[in-house]
Amino acid sequence: MIKAGILGAAGFAGIQLAHILMQHPEMRLFAAASDSLAGRPLAEVYPSFTGVADMRFCTSDQLEQMDLDVVFLAVPHTASLEQTPRVCKMGAVAIDLSADFRLRDALVYEAWYGTPHTQPDLLDVAAFGLPELFPEEMERAAKRREAGLPCVVACAGCYPTATSLAAAPAVRSGLLRTGATVVADAISGVTGAGKKPSARTHFCFANESVEAYGVTTHRHTPEIEQILDLSDQLVFTPHLAPLNRGLLSTVTIPLADGAHDLSTEEACQLYGEFYEGTAFVEALPHGVQPKTSSVAGTNRAQVGVAVDGRTQCLVATGAIDNLGKGAAGQAVQCANLVFGMNEATGLGAFALPV
Amino acid sequence: MIKAGILGAAGFAGIQLAHILMQHPEMRLFAAASDSLAGRPLAEVYPSFTGVADMRFCTSDQLEQMDLDVVFLAVPHTASLEQTPRVCKMGAVAIDLSADFRLRDALVYEAWYGTPHTQPDLLDVAAFGLPELFPEEMERAAKRREAGLPCVVACAGCYPTATSLAAAPAVRSGLLRTGATVVADAISGVTGAGKKPSARTHFCFANESVEAYGVTTHRHTPEIEQILDLSDQLVFTPHLAPLNRGLLSTVTIPLADGAHDLSTEEACQLYGEFYEGTAFVEALPHGVQPKTSSVAGTNRAQVGVAVDGRTQCLVATGAIDNLGKGAAGQAVQCANLVFGMNEATGLGAFALPV
Amino acid sequence: MIKAGILGAAGFAGIQLAHILMQHPEMRLFAAASDSLAGRPLAEVYPSFTGVADMRFCTSDQLEQMDLDVVFLAVPHTASLEQTPRVCKMGAVAIDLSADFRLRDALVYEAWYGTPHTQPDLLDVAAFGLPELFPEEMERAAKRREAGLPCVVACAGCYPTATSLAAAPAVRSGLLRTGATVVADAISGVTGAGKKPSARTHFCFANESVEAYGVTTHRHTPEIEQILDLSDQLVFTPHLAPLNRGLLSTVTIPLADGAHDLSTEEACQLYGEFYEGTAFVEALPHGVQPKTSSVAGTNRAQVGVAVDGRTQCLVATGAIDNLGKGAAGQAVQCANLVFGMNEATGLGAFALPV
Amino acid sequence: MIKAGILGAAGFAGIQLAHILMQHPEMRLFAAASDSLAGRPLAEVYPSFTGVADMRFCTSDQLEQMDLDVVFLAVPHTASLEQTPRVCKMGAVAIDLSADFRLRDALVYEAWYGTPHTQPDLLDVAAFGLPELFPEEMERAAKRREAGLPCVVACAGCYPTATSLAAAPAVRSGLLRTGATVVADAISGVTGAGKKPSARTHFCFANESVEAYGVTTHRHTPEIEQILDLSDQLVFTPHLAPLNRGLLSTVTIPLADGAHDLSTEEACQLYGEFYEGTAFVEALPHGVQPKTSSVAGTNRAQVGVAVDGRTQCLVATGAIDNLGKGAAGQAVQCANLVFGMNEATGLGAFALPV
Repeated sequence: MIKAGILGAAGFAGIQLAHILMQHPEMRLFAAASDSLAGRPLAEVYPSFTGVADMRFCTSDQLEQMDLDVVFLAVPHTASLEQTPRVCKMGAVAIDLSADFRLRDALVYEAWYGTPHTQPDLLDVAAFGLPELFPEEMERAAKRREAGLPCVVACAGCYPTATSLAAAPAVRSGLLRTGATVVADAISGVTGAGKKPSARTHFCFANESVEAYGVTTHRHTPEIEQILDLSDQLVFTPHLAPLNRGLLSTVTIPLADGAHDLSTEEACQLYGEFYEGTAFVEALPHGVQPKTSSVAGTNRAQVGVAVDGRTQCLVATGAIDNLGKGAAGQAVQCANLVFGMNEATGLGAFALPV
Repeated sequence: MIKAGILGAAGFAGIQLAHILMQHPEMRLFAAASDSLAGRPLAEVYPSFTGVADMRFCTSDQLEQMDLDVVFLAVPHTASLEQTPRVCKMGAVAIDLSADFRLRDALVYEAWYGTPHTQPDLLDVAAFGLPELFPEEMERAAKRREAGLPCVVACAGCYPTATSLAAAPAVRSGLLRTGATVVADAISGVTGAGKKPSARTHFCFANESVEAYGVTTHRHTPEIEQILDLSDQLVFTPHLAPLNRGLLSTVTIPLADGAHDLSTEEACQLYGEFYEGTAFVEALPHGVQPKTSSVAGTNRAQVGVAVDGRTQCLVATGAIDNLGKGAAGQAVQCANLVFGMNEATGLGAFALPV
Repeated sequence: MIKAGILGAAGFAGIQLAHILMQHPEMRLFAAASDSLAGRPLAEVYPSFTGVADMRFCTSDQLEQMDLDVVFLAVPHTASLEQTPRVCKMGAVAIDLSADFRLRDALVYEAWYGTPHTQPDLLDVAAFGLPELFPEEMERAAKRREAGLPCVVACAGCYPTATSLAAAPAVRSGLLRTGATVVADAISGVTGAGKKPSARTHFCFANESVEAYGVTTHRHTPEIEQILDLSDQLVFTPHLAPLNRGLLSTVTIPLADGAHDLSTEEACQLYGEFYEGTAFVEALPHGVQPKTSSVAGTNRAQVGVAVDGRTQCLVATGAIDNLGKGAAGQAVQCANLVFGMNEATGLGAFALPV
Repeated sequence: MIKAGILGAAGFAGIQLAHILMQHPEMRLFAAASDSLAGRPLAEVYPSFTGVADMRFCTSDQLEQMDLDVVFLAVPHTASLEQTPRVCKMGAVAIDLSADFRLRDALVYEAWYGTPHTQPDLLDVAAFGLPELFPEEMERAAKRREAGLPCVVACAGCYPTATSLAAAPAVRSGLLRTGATVVADAISGVTGAGKKPSARTHFCFANESVEAYGVTTHRHTPEIEQILDLSDQLVFTPHLAPLNRGLLSTVTIPLADGAHDLSTEEACQLYGEFYEGTAFVEALPHGVQPKTSSVAGTNRAQVGVAVDGRTQCLVATGAIDNLGKGAAGQAVQCANLVFGMNEATGLGAFALPV
């Protein structure tokens, strides 16, 4: 049994990790660290744990004493810069859900996050965690772990995951017109705004409204460009909608000259083949677009695609649960792979029908 | 592997049964019957099944050919009067989610449902399915099944389940003042109103509103009275609130003369002892009331209790998922018991933390 | 034009007052005081004011300099104890939305609010603001204003307003069995929990859930008992549901011996006559229960009633907007009456159809 | 007093028209026609009218007998083709909320709506109703009315209104790169899907989910292109989100070569000047994006803008109430102008603060 811990367990991604790990057949959750809530039962803050788990939040110092095999870091960016080296020193695999090790170029990190990257060595080591698009990264990480080397996985962000899963089959097939601008408009549920109470997350302000935010400035922009190998080509606009879980990204991709005859049928076939055999991503048939509720509470993704012959653009939409495939689910999927398990271990659930 | 089928699989309770049974380690879903949707894939109507299950709805006639061990009837009342005998004739255990076999007295059924009870013999046979309060009924049904006799379980309704779990520890301990009126005001999510589109279930009419309905006339009233052994003592008022899943019942119980010194602490202790060791019901500590989200998507229940010394009343609140412990979850729990399994088999999930 | 100001203008009741007063034909809003937000535009915090009103929050000290005719106090309890005397000293009418002057008996106030009542003289002066049930109180206040005497209106709370409007026709007609226990279970939208961000008001915790709170201890209990002239007879349980605005109270009233033949038709007629000619309260016909959305955003109320012959109880439900008839609307209605205007002035709006 | 009627009064746009017209100081609602609901009180279907208006739905034949000055057509497309000539024959102004007279080119109508345009003469007559962008159209219609000529206004659709208000200041200032593709991703509340109950509008399917629909095929696409003078340049993708009212359109506009130095500040200034002095449209300051709740229930619009120097694109977001400025509000605004009134008459309300 793999001994697992969570740093930042009290936040929404952290507690979702706890929820998954408590039901994982091969990993056992030994420590759910939250320095601010240490000592309090998980069930006091998240009452769905009542009668199910009598675990209490511990401190990050306590977590360090537990001889863990893997530590999930569900902490804010910059906090991970500080804590990932400590995890590596513990000899544990670090599965990082923050943004600190996602961008390969430290200068890009510094430009978008406004703070220096203090761990360039670990940045070189870190594997990018979006297994459907970068399986080789998981293999590299698994080998490092086997070799006893520091092993860090930088899990893809929520918007980058949905956006890239929607765009990758087209972009990697050369369908994107060279140099053209890609537009991704994405909609997230409110768990994406985090657990901290604020005016933005107040029920009465979030309810019955939609809005855009971070227009032209959202930090997931360079991450998506990196994944899709774009160069200052992405306009990314995130939106907030009144639901708990769910993230939908709608991506408009101008077609390359050679692809002007592409039909929606052909695009659907291409998408179907691209994701054939994957455990978690489903390409939908012609005419069907995904709903976020179809994947809520799970590590699954659904992708729809259509071609607009009038404008020579392909439109793809990708739906995930921002806390599932967009955070905790993907982190466990990565951990499964790093430890040589089937990637779907402990992640078999599918969404409630309604 | 127990071979299971569902009649009325396209409704909300039926599809929730499919969702549970597809993940059940000891039962296998062979037939999801819906005469109106026969031939269509489940995933077309409920896209969370996409890529997970390629099952199609079948006809009820097809279901009859399948040599099933158990059939869940998620059909409207009166339909079950007709179909339960057919299930018995098939030699399968009938787990009925409708109201047709819940009321022991056929005359009470006829008075509240406005239609004659055409199966008085099966009514005598039927075991009442609310295992925490009537474990002996499950034993009786299990023995009938073992003996090869017709075996019918009439699962308790959603409001009766939440209301009775909240009230039973007090009522069965003799805390209810003799002859006094019990008031139960309950709130249900909109899945409780069924899958059929209507003005009531239209998003724009249900959203941002709460309302009472069926005031003084709701058919779950005599069922609750039967469970709690009340005699024209219950005022039951159901309400609709804008959420998908969840049912909360708040029950006000006048205290017997001998109980006038009861403290909330003592009530909490009594409730804790009453549900100690149960797999699914949690009595909450002093000062804590259940939220429906804490049990959403599961077969769990949470119950809170407080004593009002001023008025000599006890107030108990019970939270369930109306489709879980209030319908499909409880049905599977009953089936597990009838087939001699641990009641929690396939029902281990607990609610998402947020 | 009557010169009006608001103390505590940044909270939900305060800002709703601003919204009403800005469209009031006879009052003009001169000051919206919020010491914590002073200097910031209303539109910055509540963007519906953008382009409509360029008013900024001021300090309470600034408000005092403005020679106002009326000041609405939308401040927490105890703060009103301190500020109402200042308003009186300014020579303005004080319309208090807090609980500080609602309970006639200072000892009851101290018992439920846990703090001494420091203004017993003003308590004697204060008129209770629920004009449909206490028109004489408004007349008394109007005369005090005309006479240049200190004039304070203590507006009824949200739960007391809905509960009492539902119960009063029955109770005042002598239908309540002497000494019997009345049960009121009420459901409020989340604006009722206030503007301050907290775990309770976080979208992701409030959404998709209902829960009871303040069981047996809610401070509106003695206020309802005072209005209905009950004596330790009320069990009041408030609930929270996922909507912004709206409050529904369901009241179960045991019938007096002489009323055992009362039919629902007769009860509906009695209710209809009770509210006939009122500007804001509508008694619904037989078989119809109110929805909160039917009165959202307004000062209106709707009431439904049914008689349960089995249990000899009457069940009445009352729907209001907790920020409208439950707070700001009622406050303006009271102010209208104190200043000798038609009570409906500036309050004519009715709810959006959907 | 102008005598007004509504055809299709039972739908969401129709009933919102009734709500506005009942409070309009210069128009009086004489007839709310719905052939399917004729004879039933408005309040029975929409209980917010209870106690406010005792009007009943009438038949369209009855409406024709009423010597009306203006008829609002809130009917489906093609129905308007049939009924608008009848309205003109009655001598009334026709304010059409359907799509039948919006597209100037009958062939474009036929291509997108799949049905021949049977009223080419009226099509030439019809004025396009989006007064902020086409004031001359309203003048033309007003002159026709004064001259006693057939007068038809084809009000802009909901998505075209929000999208065009967001895009027009940039496009009309020549900021759009010649021939470049414009991407508009828009999100609508569920009232946009109409009153008819269906799986799509069922609370439990719409709630807690977002999805795209009509990808590459939505019929508002050519209307937006016509308004903005685009030529097969628009990729428009609408989405559904779980709220009643509100529509947000996010438009990404590639900048012309000469505009590469445009700053967000300059764009904000340009937008501010463009909408300066308009009654209903507010350009927001730098860094602020509109929320749909800020305009819910009103005829207002809010627009935000930002420039992305990296990609040389301008991103504008526009928020409206799809039933307000997107339907009924705009229709009344147009009628006001056609009858020579101030356009804001009866439309002065602004949104609830929360």
